[in-house]
Amino acid sequence: MNQDHSALLAKLGAGARRAARSLMDAGDARRSQALMIAGERVRQRADEILAANALDLEAGADQGLSAALLDRLRLDATRLEAVAAGLESIAGLDSPVGRVLADWTRPNGLRIQRVSVPIGVIGVIFESRPNVTADAAGLCLKSGNAVILRGGSEAVHSNRALHDALSEGLVRSGLPSSAVQLMPTQDRAAVGAMLGAHEWLDMVVPRGGKGLVARVQADARVPVLAHLDGNNHLYVHAAADADMAVDVVLNAKMRRPGICGALETLLLDRQRLDLLPKLVDRLTESGCQLRADPDLCALDERLRPADETDWATEYLDAVLAVHVVDSADEALAHIARYGSGHTDGIITEDDDAAEHFLSGLDSAIAVRNASTQFADGGEFGFGAEIGIATGRLHARGPVGVEQLTTFQYRVIGNGQTRP
Amino acid sequence: MNQDHSALLAKLGAGARRAARSLMDAGDARRSQALMIAGERVRQRADEILAANALDLEAGADQGLSAALLDRLRLDATRLEAVAAGLESIAGLDSPVGRVLADWTRPNGLRIQRVSVPIGVIGVIFESRPNVTADAAGLCLKSGNAVILRGGSEAVHSNRALHDALSEGLVRSGLPSSAVQLMPTQDRAAVGAMLGAHEWLDMVVPRGGKGLVARVQADARVPVLAHLDGNNHLYVHAAADADMAVDVVLNAKMRRPGICGALETLLLDRQRLDLLPKLVDRLTESGCQLRADPDLCALDERLRPADETDWATEYLDAVLAVHVVDSADEALAHIARYGSGHTDGIITEDDDAAEHFLSGLDSAIAVRNASTQFADGGEFGFGAEIGIATGRLHARGPVGVEQLTTFQYRVIGNGQTRP
Repeated sequence: MNQDHSALLAKLGAGARRAARSLMDAGDARRSQALMIAGERVRQRADEILAANALDLEAGADQGLSAALLDRLRLDATRLEAVAAGLESIAGLDSPVGRVLADWTRPNGLRIQRVSVPIGVIGVIFESRPNVTADAAGLCLKSGNAVILRGGSEAVHSNRALHDALSEGLVRSGLPSSAVQLMPTQDRAAVGAMLGAHEWLDMVVPRGGKGLVARVQADARVPVLAHLDGNNHLYVHAAADADMAVDVVLNAKMRRPGICGALETLLLDRQRLDLLPKLVDRLTESGCQLRADPDLCALDERLRPADETDWATEYLDAVLAVHVVDSADEALAHIARYGSGHTDGIITEDDDAAEHFLSGLDSAIAVRNASTQFADGGEFGFGAEIGIATGRLHARGPVGVEQLTTFQYRVIGNGQTRP
Repeated sequence: MNQDHSALLAKLGAGARRAARSLMDAGDARRSQALMIAGERVRQRADEILAANALDLEAGADQGLSAALLDRLRLDATRLEAVAAGLESIAGLDSPVGRVLADWTRPNGLRIQRVSVPIGVIGVIFESRPNVTADAAGLCLKSGNAVILRGGSEAVHSNRALHDALSEGLVRSGLPSSAVQLMPTQDRAAVGAMLGAHEWLDMVVPRGGKGLVARVQADARVPVLAHLDGNNHLYVHAAADADMAVDVVLNAKMRRPGICGALETLLLDRQRLDLLPKLVDRLTESGCQLRADPDLCALDERLRPADETDWATEYLDAVLAVHVVDSADEALAHIARYGSGHTDGIITEDDDAAEHFLSGLDSAIAVRNASTQFADGGEFGFGAEIGIATGRLHARGPVGVEQLTTFQYRVIGNGQTRP
């Protein structure tokens, strides 16, 4: 690790640690007030923020960024209003801190409570979307955590302008501005310094493409809450309702093919080949390409042959892999082999089959008779989310403010000593 | 990483992954049966296990291991009975898997449940105590996890003999013996291979001295559930009950000074200097040395001066550091600076003071009016524990079978598609 970056991290980290303590003492009302003011400041500073964004867009165009990247980078009045409203909506959530998660009394009279508390200092490493500056800071602050943000170099002006609004919210609420810090360097080695800073960061959340997330997971010495692939499956069981199966599969794939909860492989029970024509009709009508087992392709010329790589691919596009299975266990085995543990499910009217299947799934989200596109913090009722965790520890699935807390045991006695 | 160790890990890991799936399918009754049989086999194979242990003790003596290390290594009839009874007691716990942790219904009719599930494959790296082979395997199995054990080279024969009993329990219950595997090499580089094996291990638990734990934390690319220092504090507040304060401090320090929940620094409010003579009497009578602020030393010749290192030291011995503070906030600041986030507390009759203090503590366990020595899975009612986690994520404090699980969301619909 570069000495300069290490010293920089120590400086930011020490400020964040102090801020985390102030946030803990400040209480939810003051943390939420800071977010409300920050939202208001985003609106009032709109011209300034959009001017900063214009600089980034100009530089991006000069560097030849793709149209898709430039679109992600772009802020406009509508997107800025969404940023402001997002901060206010996070402020309005119930406090995730101080909840009594469990409460019991031991035979010796000791009362033990498990109480939710902030994690501490969270690092968020993200790419081109500048709105992550506000969303991530909002979620971290609401849950009482200090945050160190490292945005993409292409959004440097936009991120600074948004960060200014957040700082104002903090300072005007009597909270330290070091509760939300932006890494002041765009040097890539600074990311390495963050990933090794276990003294200063309690957790790192990478938000971005697979390259970024994989790098963070490989290099991090701090715990990572990462969202990797969403190679999601639906198994249409023998006892599936025909109309429901077609509607749910179509929605799961095509509502928004590019989100992580989108369906990627359909597992069709051999007893339900009768559904194939209708499924292919509806999917191809909506612009979806289908890649299927060779024997399925023989049944419908609109199907193209799939190979091994298709089973393992998260298309994030209007493409669906289709594989025929002879049983629920074969479907489970396929998912165990190729799935990514994000969201998988079954369509069936048979309760026993559903229970067997869901129990056999090793996925963060196991669905019955509903679209996989519900894999989302908002749809779960969590409010905003910082991502969908595909790891196994601490948090799985949508990560909202509750998942950005940990817990403390409170042990209340009246003089108990241990025999 | 050595190629051979990497290949070995892949072999053990693939077996463990398959076993984890079988354990998930098998259900609690069969997992518990395996533990009951293993306990019985430990009793029946006692001669064999003790003979293996004798080989280790002999080799240890030849290598000049200290008396303390040899004692940790030693098994005898009593300790072996405790191992067997421990397995049976873990078998008898409520199943930590399949608990519905939360259950709610969304406005669109989707029912969402959070259900506890096994973590998957856990690596346990431990030192000389052979009983960890059985304890760790028991806790992992009960919670539905496969485990790869890496014991100390000094206990190699004992660990193998205990592992044989565990394998018998598995096989006789129709479970794969690869659910509990012992690393077949004592090469230290094999530990490095475990720490990098994120494909195969979902979590690593180091059990041993600070050197081992620190190495694991520094090198691990897999999540670590580690127990580092227990530099624990009790603050005797102005409104403390005098007798309670003395009894609790004495118990917290001297009941067993070598356990991680033992008190290491007493923070005495300046308004309660009246308690000093009694505290010093009782502690010195029980064989405790006291290291205190210079101005305190002037009050009692039995006190020796403390320096900066004392505040940061986990003595694990009959030594107590004593520091006078002017307020609860000064006590909190001392703990924030020198504490290790394990177990800290206050002795006071004042409810507001207690609430302020406990809320300001950033420790896994925050205690009021009770001994810090209650920081223990058994005392919390968790049954056996694999350790006390001092990290902030996933689990904090005592890690019993519940903390060796994670969760899955079950989303139950009746055909919902996302608008």
